[in-house]
Amino acid sequence: MSSRHPLVTHRTKGIPGGTAPFAIEDVAARGWNVLRQDQPLPLAILYEPAIANNARWMREFCRNANVSLAPHGKTTMSPDLFRRQIDDGAWAITLSTPHQVQVARDFGISRILLANQIVDPRFIDFVMSERDADPGFDFLCLIDSIDGARIAGEHIRARGFRSRLGVLVEVGAQKGRTGVRSVEEAFAVIDAIAAYPDALELRGVEGFEGIFGPNTPESLAKVTALIESVATVAMSLDEKGLLTGDEVVLSAGGSSYYDVVVDRLQKVKLSRPTRVVIRSGCYIAHDGIMYSDFFAALKERSQRVRDIEGGLQPALQVVTYVQSMPEPGMALLSGGKRDLSYDMHLPKPRLTFRPGRDEAPVHIGECHEIYALADQHAFMRIPEDSKLRIGDMVILDISHPCTTFDKWDVLYGVDGDYNVVSAYKTYF
Amino acid sequence: MSSRHPLVTHRTKGIPGGTAPFAIEDVAARGWNVLRQDQPLPLAILYEPAIANNARWMREFCRNANVSLAPHGKTTMSPDLFRRQIDDGAWAITLSTPHQVQVARDFGISRILLANQIVDPRFIDFVMSERDADPGFDFLCLIDSIDGARIAGEHIRARGFRSRLGVLVEVGAQKGRTGVRSVEEAFAVIDAIAAYPDALELRGVEGFEGIFGPNTPESLAKVTALIESVATVAMSLDEKGLLTGDEVVLSAGGSSYYDVVVDRLQKVKLSRPTRVVIRSGCYIAHDGIMYSDFFAALKERSQRVRDIEGGLQPALQVVTYVQSMPEPGMALLSGGKRDLSYDMHLPKPRLTFRPGRDEAPVHIGECHEIYALADQHAFMRIPEDSKLRIGDMVILDISHPCTTFDKWDVLYGVDGDYNVVSAYKTYF
Repeated sequence: MSSRHPLVTHRTKGIPGGTAPFAIEDVAARGWNVLRQDQPLPLAILYEPAIANNARWMREFCRNANVSLAPHGKTTMSPDLFRRQIDDGAWAITLSTPHQVQVARDFGISRILLANQIVDPRFIDFVMSERDADPGFDFLCLIDSIDGARIAGEHIRARGFRSRLGVLVEVGAQKGRTGVRSVEEAFAVIDAIAAYPDALELRGVEGFEGIFGPNTPESLAKVTALIESVATVAMSLDEKGLLTGDEVVLSAGGSSYYDVVVDRLQKVKLSRPTRVVIRSGCYIAHDGIMYSDFFAALKERSQRVRDIEGGLQPALQVVTYVQSMPEPGMALLSGGKRDLSYDMHLPKPRLTFRPGRDEAPVHIGECHEIYALADQHAFMRIPEDSKLRIGDMVILDISHPCTTFDKWDVLYGVDGDYNVVSAYKTYF
Repeated sequence: MSSRHPLVTHRTKGIPGGTAPFAIEDVAARGWNVLRQDQPLPLAILYEPAIANNARWMREFCRNANVSLAPHGKTTMSPDLFRRQIDDGAWAITLSTPHQVQVARDFGISRILLANQIVDPRFIDFVMSERDADPGFDFLCLIDSIDGARIAGEHIRARGFRSRLGVLVEVGAQKGRTGVRSVEEAFAVIDAIAAYPDALELRGVEGFEGIFGPNTPESLAKVTALIESVATVAMSLDEKGLLTGDEVVLSAGGSSYYDVVVDRLQKVKLSRPTRVVIRSGCYIAHDGIMYSDFFAALKERSQRVRDIEGGLQPALQVVTYVQSMPEPGMALLSGGKRDLSYDMHLPKPRLTFRPGRDEAPVHIGECHEIYALADQHAFMRIPEDSKLRIGDMVILDISHPCTTFDKWDVLYGVDGDYNVVSAYKTYF
C-alpha cells in the first residue's frame, strides 16, 4: 500500500516532449507557465483560488446546516483531492465501483460510502478483507433488493469474514434509477438483510435525487418526492425498531439539490442519533455552464445558500490552440472529445490569449461558439471579422466536471497568473 | 526511452482488488477468465480471434489495392497495437497530438504521419529534436494555411534544426474541417512553404473525408468530391513542378470510405513515384454498431472489398453486471459513461451469462435496449418477463471504438472461451 503516485512521463497529456520522468508532487518546481507555452496543449487546468473558495464554501454550508459531507470521489478520481476533502472535514468519500474503492484504499481513505449495491463476489472479497485487516476502515454500501441482500449475505457468510458489511437501504422513484419503489419493498429488503445478521448490518437509508435533470418545477417536485420517500422509509423503519446501530445514516444529495435534501432530512426525528450525509462530487471543481446554472437555482431557492458569503466558482477549464482557420467564420481548436465534456453541453469559449503579444487572457466575446467536437478537434463558429489567428490560445469552460476529469491523467493547478503550482493525478 | 509499460496495479479498472503490481505483458500467466468472475466488472475485452481476422483482412485489402496503411493510432493509443500494425506491414502510424507523438516515439515508432497542422512551438521542438537525433525517424504533418507554414518555418529556422519538417498540404471542403478550400489556396500555401526551403519539405497532398457522417448518397457525394479535390491539387502541383521529393505521398481515408479513396487516388498519375496512404484507425477493433453498418456499405459499394474473404469483425465489447432491477421492464448495468462510447450510438446488449449456471454467454434477445447512460450506470429496457437476475453478466457491443478505448487504461484480450490471454495498455 503506497500513497505515492507513479512517476509522470511525457506519455501523459500536458507534459512537454522529452521531459524525464519526475514526481508529480514536485510539479511546481518546474516553473511552468501555461501562457508562456511551457506545456503542450490541450491542457486541463484547475484554478487554485477557485478550488480553495469552493472548499471553503462547502465547509461553511455543511457546518451551518449541521450535515456531513461524503463528496462523490468518482467526479475527480484524484486521491489528492480526496485527501484535501477529508482534511477539510469530509466524513467519508463516496464511490461507485470496485476500481474506485481500490484506488481510495491505496491512498488510505478510511471511510467509504459505496453509492451502489454490491453484486460482484470479488468486490465483496476485497472490501471485507480490507475491513477484517483494518479495524479503522469503515465501509457502507447500498442494497435495494432481496437478491442484493442474498448475494452479499451468502457470499460473506460462505467466506467467513469476521466483519459485517454496513448497508443502507436504497430508496428510488418510479422510472428513476436504482432503489426500492415503495415502503413495502423497503420492508421486504430489510427482512432479507435481517436474514444475515452475521454478515450484514443495516445502518440507514439512502436515496439519490440527482437523476431528475435540469432545474424545472417538475424536476424539483420529483426531487422533493424522492427525499420525502427517504424520510418516510427511515421513520417507518424506526417505528418498527428496525434501525439498531449507534447512529442512523440518512444520505442523499448530488450537486444540484443538496439544499432540498438538507431541509427535509434534517427534520427527520428518529429514536436514535442521526447523521445526514450529502454527497456532492462536483462542488470542488464546479463548472462554468451546467453547475453554474444549478448553483444560481440553489441560491434563488435557499436561504441557507444565500447566507454564505460568495458562491461556488468554476475551477476547471481546458486550454487549446487555434489549430486551423480554413474559411471565414470558422476555427478549429486543438481539443476534442478526448479532452472536453460533451455529454451535457458543448464547451464554451471564454478567454483568448496571443502568446508573445498579450499580457493576460481576455474575454473572447459572445459570438464565439463551439458547434461540434470531433475526437481531437473542436469546431468553433466565429465572427467573420474575428481577430483570432492560428496559434492563439482559447480557454474553454466545460459543462459537467465528471466527464472532463475522466479525460485527463493529470490536471494542472494554476494560480491567477497561470503558473502551474500543483497537479492532480487521476485514476480512471 | 523505454519500451516497457509501467507495472499495473489494482488502481486500474479490471484488476482484482489486492493484486500486487505486475508486468501487464505477463497477464496471461494469471489464468484469469472473465466468465469465472476473476476480474471486477465493468471490463473492456478485445476478442483476439477478431483482432487477428481484422489484421489479416486489412493486410489483404492494402496488398490487393497496392496502397500503404498508416493506421490512426489515436483510436487505440495502444503501443502494442501500433507495434502489431507495423509488424503487419503498416507504413506509418497516424497521430493527432503532441502527447500521442511522444507516446509513439517512446515505443520506437519510426514513421509518424501527424494528421494535423503543427502550431505549438514546443511540439515543433520535440519533433525536430527527435528528427535531428534519429536519422531513422520520419515525420510528416499537414499544413493548410500561410500562417501554418510561417509558424513552423520561422520556428524551425530560429532554432536551427538540421532536419527539415516534412509536410503535406491539406485539402478540405467548404463547411468541412481543416484544409484549404480551393486549388488557388493550395498554391498560396505551397508558396508559403517554399519560403522556408531550409525548414520545410513539401512531400504530398492530404485530405480527410471521414467528416461527412453516415453512409447516405449525400455523404458519398461529398466524400467523392473531397477526394477529387485531393487528386486535382496533386495533379496541379505536379504540372507546375512543385512536387520535388523522391516520392509523393497522397493520403486520405478514415474507416468508412477507404474504398472510394483507393479507387480515385490510385488513378492519379504524377511525374514521379506516388504512394497512396490510407489511415483507418478503427478497422483493427471494429465495432458491432456504427462500423458494422459502414462496413456493410463498403462491401455493397466495392468489388475490391467483396474480393477479400470474410470481413471485419467486432472485437471490442464491454462486460457488465446487472446491478439493480428496481421495477418491471428495467435493469441497471454496472457500466456507464466512464466505460462505454456514447457519442455516436448507445451501446447494445448482445449476450448474457449467469455465473455458476451457464456454460457460455447466450444471446440476450432483441427486446433488451440501453436507453440512457449515467456516469457509472447503463439504463436497460427489458421485457417484463425477462429471465435476467441481479448479478447476471451482460456483454455490450459499442459504437465507435475511439471513444471506448479512451475510457480504459488497460483492455483485456480474450480467446473464444473468455480466457484473458493478453492485455493492451493505453496512453490517453
